Amino acid sequence: MAEFSRIAIIGLGLIGSSLARAVQLRLPSIYVVGTDNSAHVRQRAAELGIVDEVADTAAAAVRAAELVVIATPLGAYAAIGREIAPELSAGAILSDVGSAKQVVLQTLTPLLPSHVELVPAHPVAGTEQSGPDAGFAELFEDRWCILTPPEGADAGAVARLQAFWMAIGSTVETMDAHHHDLVLAVTSHVPHLIAYSIVGTAADLENVTRSEVIKYSAGGFRDFTRIAASDPTMWRDVFLYNRDSVLEILARVTEDLTALQRAIRWREGDALFERFASSRAIRRAIIDAGQDTEAADFGREGQRHPKSQPIS
Amino acid sequence: MAEFSRIAIIGLGLIGSSLARAVQLRLPSIYVVGTDNSAHVRQRAAELGIVDEVADTAAAAVRAAELVVIATPLGAYAAIGREIAPELSAGAILSDVGSAKQVVLQTLTPLLPSHVELVPAHPVAGTEQSGPDAGFAELFEDRWCILTPPEGADAGAVARLQAFWMAIGSTVETMDAHHHDLVLAVTSHVPHLIAYSIVGTAADLENVTRSEVIKYSAGGFRDFTRIAASDPTMWRDVFLYNRDSVLEILARVTEDLTALQRAIRWREGDALFERFASSRAIRRAIIDAGQDTEAADFGREGQRHPKSQPIS
Repeated sequence: MAEFSRIAIIGLGLIGSSLARAVQLRLPSIYVVGTDNSAHVRQRAAELGIVDEVADTAAAAVRAAELVVIATPLGAYAAIGREIAPELSAGAILSDVGSAKQVVLQTLTPLLPSHVELVPAHPVAGTEQSGPDAGFAELFEDRWCILTPPEGADAGAVARLQAFWMAIGSTVETMDAHHHDLVLAVTSHVPHLIAYSIVGTAADLENVTRSEVIKYSAGGFRDFTRIAASDPTMWRDVFLYNRDSVLEILARVTEDLTALQRAIRWREGDALFERFASSRAIRRAIIDAGQDTEAADFGREGQRHPKSQPIS
Repeated sequence: MAEFSRIAIIGLGLIGSSLARAVQLRLPSIYVVGTDNSAHVRQRAAELGIVDEVADTAAAAVRAAELVVIATPLGAYAAIGREIAPELSAGAILSDVGSAKQVVLQTLTPLLPSHVELVPAHPVAGTEQSGPDAGFAELFEDRWCILTPPEGADAGAVARLQAFWMAIGSTVETMDAHHHDLVLAVTSHVPHLIAYSIVGTAADLENVTRSEVIKYSAGGFRDFTRIAASDPTMWRDVFLYNRDSVLEILARVTEDLTALQRAIRWREGDALFERFASSRAIRRAIIDAGQDTEAADFGREGQRHPKSQPIS
């Protein structure tokens, strides 16, 4: 993998710091310059030793880099684009890891000189934790990374970025940015929105106390709180910048939820059963596709107590 | 723990078979008779050796039992109540593990002879798996078990049932059945309904394929599919029999979701941020209360790859 000798990562949170660690582990010949707008994060990245060099500014970080990856909330892209555009090398690839992709093309394309190739990317991976200490090198292994090159993008640049993500363990797919935004609205953005919403609802009820919600959360609620613990700035920006796809999918979700609500009100047991039974097939397919573990309850019980063996 | 010498468990699915295993492990002096309306499950329970005796019918199972625990979907309670009522011993405690409690009192109270004490219970524990093979003895450890005795219930019977659940590792709380149903609607029933709903929506979109939903599920959707893999019969009955509380909480959830939807439409970033940030406090409290693991992503990544150590 001699495709890149020097790369820059702008933003050293969960994803950026994981990317730095993955390169260090799997592509150690690449020189990695990292930066972050937080002095505390820059210092922490230096202490952790996850990049070869910490730069104070994005402009300084990207100088001579052959690949630049923006790993910040989407709301910061415009300012970063303006800051780094004059510093980008001829032939450099500018990419990112953002969860919405149409906005990346819209924001960055007008800012870039013609000698830079813009190839947005989205590794579909993450945890609910944030910051440089939460990252780990294996985050992207066995996960999908979606590239959304603009029409007319340089095929060589796309191939180089694809090889880079494959080298750190991901499977790469290319798709249109509009379609990406719709797919991710379904599989990620709307689930997060609903989780945030219901956690907020539960915290604000008059007739059920917050302490009861916490005590009895093992009945399902706790899984929603995990998702709702994700970084609020990142998610605010996802909803602001993938607004149209999120609203489109959300309309479908509320329509279907209303139908279930009506089935409960009218005691239509068969309709409920059919809907619930069909969900199991999807779960099975996700496990078969290696995108989740089969361990009951995510293996949470097993972490405390080894599963008892059947006594025969 | 000489409170009971013989108990009966009616229904040997995930919860019933876990209860049988827990008694075998923690209260081995108790003689356990188990039954199930499925001949296959009865045979499997015998093969697994998780009960001392398998009875062919509920009526046969309860004879001479000092404690009878119904562990079937709620819809089966009326028929079971009619079947076992004439066979219950004087002084026997009839209990259950159902997820809704007002309906248990309404259904069973009129069927029981006065020499039987009805003390409904709800262990707030479970996984998304079903059947006698999915059970394990530690399921109830460090989990809450809620008792909802009717007004005027015998205090001695309540105390004996409480001691029983504590002996298998649970912490016991007593509350009014109506309040129980509202609390569980928030922490369990409505989250399950929403998960079922969104999984169904995602499977039926015209412009996003099912295979895309599966491939990119690691962005959050897969967590919903886990919940939505739970037993459809059990959950159908929860919604039919806890109808009023579920509809009440669901109305609040959709109201709050609509407010978030509106904030997205009008690009109110601050409102979104505030809502998202406050969810983190609830998550923290659930982890501190021991009701979930702190491991990132439920430790799923860690199961495949040990977290890389910072290189310093």
